[in-house]
Amino acid sequence: MAVSGPLSGITVLDLTRVLAGPYCTMMLGELGARVIKVEPPNGGDDARQFGPFIDKKSAYFASLNRGKESIVLDLKQAADQEILRALLKNADVLVENYRAGAMEKLGFGWEDLHPEFPRLIYAATSGFGHTGPYAHRPAYDMVAQAMGGIMSLTGHPGSPPTRVGTSVGDITAGLFTVIGVNAALLHRERTGEGMKVDVSMLDSQVAILENAISRYVVTNEVPGPLGARHPSIAPFGAFKAADDHLIAAAANNELYRKLCLALERPDLCKDPRFHDNPARIENVDALQTEIEAALASRPRDEWLAIFEEAGVPCSPINNVADVLRDPQVLARNMIVEIEDAKIGTVRAPGNPIKLSAFPDAKRRKAAPDLDGDRARILREIKG
Amino acid sequence: MAVSGPLSGITVLDLTRVLAGPYCTMMLGELGARVIKVEPPNGGDDARQFGPFIDKKSAYFASLNRGKESIVLDLKQAADQEILRALLKNADVLVENYRAGAMEKLGFGWEDLHPEFPRLIYAATSGFGHTGPYAHRPAYDMVAQAMGGIMSLTGHPGSPPTRVGTSVGDITAGLFTVIGVNAALLHRERTGEGMKVDVSMLDSQVAILENAISRYVVTNEVPGPLGARHPSIAPFGAFKAADDHLIAAAANNELYRKLCLALERPDLCKDPRFHDNPARIENVDALQTEIEAALASRPRDEWLAIFEEAGVPCSPINNVADVLRDPQVLARNMIVEIEDAKIGTVRAPGNPIKLSAFPDAKRRKAAPDLDGDRARILREIKG
Repeated sequence: MAVSGPLSGITVLDLTRVLAGPYCTMMLGELGARVIKVEPPNGGDDARQFGPFIDKKSAYFASLNRGKESIVLDLKQAADQEILRALLKNADVLVENYRAGAMEKLGFGWEDLHPEFPRLIYAATSGFGHTGPYAHRPAYDMVAQAMGGIMSLTGHPGSPPTRVGTSVGDITAGLFTVIGVNAALLHRERTGEGMKVDVSMLDSQVAILENAISRYVVTNEVPGPLGARHPSIAPFGAFKAADDHLIAAAANNELYRKLCLALERPDLCKDPRFHDNPARIENVDALQTEIEAALASRPRDEWLAIFEEAGVPCSPINNVADVLRDPQVLARNMIVEIEDAKIGTVRAPGNPIKLSAFPDAKRRKAAPDLDGDRARILREIKG
Repeated sequence: MAVSGPLSGITVLDLTRVLAGPYCTMMLGELGARVIKVEPPNGGDDARQFGPFIDKKSAYFASLNRGKESIVLDLKQAADQEILRALLKNADVLVENYRAGAMEKLGFGWEDLHPEFPRLIYAATSGFGHTGPYAHRPAYDMVAQAMGGIMSLTGHPGSPPTRVGTSVGDITAGLFTVIGVNAALLHRERTGEGMKVDVSMLDSQVAILENAISRYVVTNEVPGPLGARHPSIAPFGAFKAADDHLIAAAANNELYRKLCLALERPDLCKDPRFHDNPARIENVDALQTEIEAALASRPRDEWLAIFEEAGVPCSPINNVADVLRDPQVLARNMIVEIEDAKIGTVRAPGNPIKLSAFPDAKRRKAAPDLDGDRARILREIKG
């Protein structure tokens, strides 16, 4: 049972593996598309071998590939190439995340396919994109994070290199690819014309650098890591209470006033070192010291209750267990259940795009067994 | 001059400020939409006051709001409400990032607008979404990063809390909103029906936790920060050469073999501690020590040249200055020039979605002056 959504009726041929591409096609599936995963022989998508496992099935693969169908094709063999060609006749979108040139070698590049399938949208997610001097280099998330600059901004001053703790290199490329595919589908609906969407992990990292680029081009100073602080807003970061850290974010004078009153430190409102945001940035260490001196009198949860009451944006620093039981996360159906006949129910992140025209189902169909939909898919081609 | 793209002909009313919403409407503009920024009186979008500044104009605002138009409306005044209503007649999409309930108070919530403007797509990007127990709480990027779990995975074991160095809380919410808007535009093209798109920063953070959730639900162990390491792949992280760190990512046995040979340490291929990925994860500290012992003989750039030659995925850890002069980043047109008559040319991140059907322009129109397009916009309404 596919998810019902605005992409219902759209068929995606999914020649992707590991994370960036499968994340893209997972989101297309979450929006209602039918996703047919075309997997290589000898084990299929590498992510089938990535832990953690339940009864030898990868829970990681199960989460990213829920609701997809699977057929194994050896695209170096003529017979299987014919099957792919038959599938392309009824497909709306092809998504692949091979290195630049790989699909061309097989005879399935955009230039090969577009004349024969003019309505087909061809989406490529790769490490460096299909043009430029690095186009043929291999890449993984770590490479994109490092080359794209986000690692230089993450961590504490003087600390060893620090990776963002989830694979934002892969995932942002997946998201930009979804945006491109949806825009291309709209264009096709209006003009009948397919197009190629070429997204790279490196480009996607550059696209999310936001104010680090503005700061550098204006000041010529190279931004570095700032721990838990924001580069241009204070107070805005992590502060230690009696037992644990909390987050407080007072992005303007009114919120700063509310924070000082909540801390029972009205003197901090009037302190000339902190009278506006530029002053607070200038004296950010002193401000941290004053706030933590006040926070030392109570445990984190008491302060969070006080801040919430006072309207000061705040949060605990939740770990994954906290996230999975957070009332808001649960109320928003952000933890869904994947029903797998063999390994039981697996909890996984839901769809953050809530659409009034479609229900947001609590359950998802399982990820496919390798080649598990072959017979039906072949029948459809022949039928 | 608007950008030419698949959303050409689409008009977006942009009632957003600061980052998540403006990032969404920037991307819609990059795809060809006309974006009319409706700003509040008394200074408009808060981000106009965020540094760094060039001649008192915010370079940050200039980057995020390139190519948009601006009109100031006080939505508490009947006359300005009428202007908004007139604008809605010709609009395809409304995007807002107020707190839940704010638009309803003004009489411009989805329930108010949908009967009168059935084709209008209404997109809301908020801290917590429009439903659930936290719906009315204030949020900023820091709050979303902390509450959504990514901070618990970022940093070094035992280090103080560490924020991801760019505002991924805002930006991912902006990206999921773009995906929702594009999907809703496709649906409208096929059915004539508008819909509401409700995206939250917290939900978006949960959606990108990827394998941290799988690991927790399978093992019941709460994942923590791992510095620059990957939780389930080794070697995959930062390693110190003679002068500086580099990134090497050998995600399978073949790449690991290539790495060992490039290091002139064939013995490491055969070492039983490292014979496959699970063994390498188990002995990840010993592996780090061995690799860094080998790397100590040469500076970073020599090793990077050797690894590239050998086909081992690798990278320097670039800072923002490095990124802005990287040949691949430049070849991909990822640094564009915003032409501002007052402050000159400002460099900013380009559009990572490269589409074969549309040119990827090198230059962008400037961000608008506050209320700078009022006269023309009002003429259009009357005409």
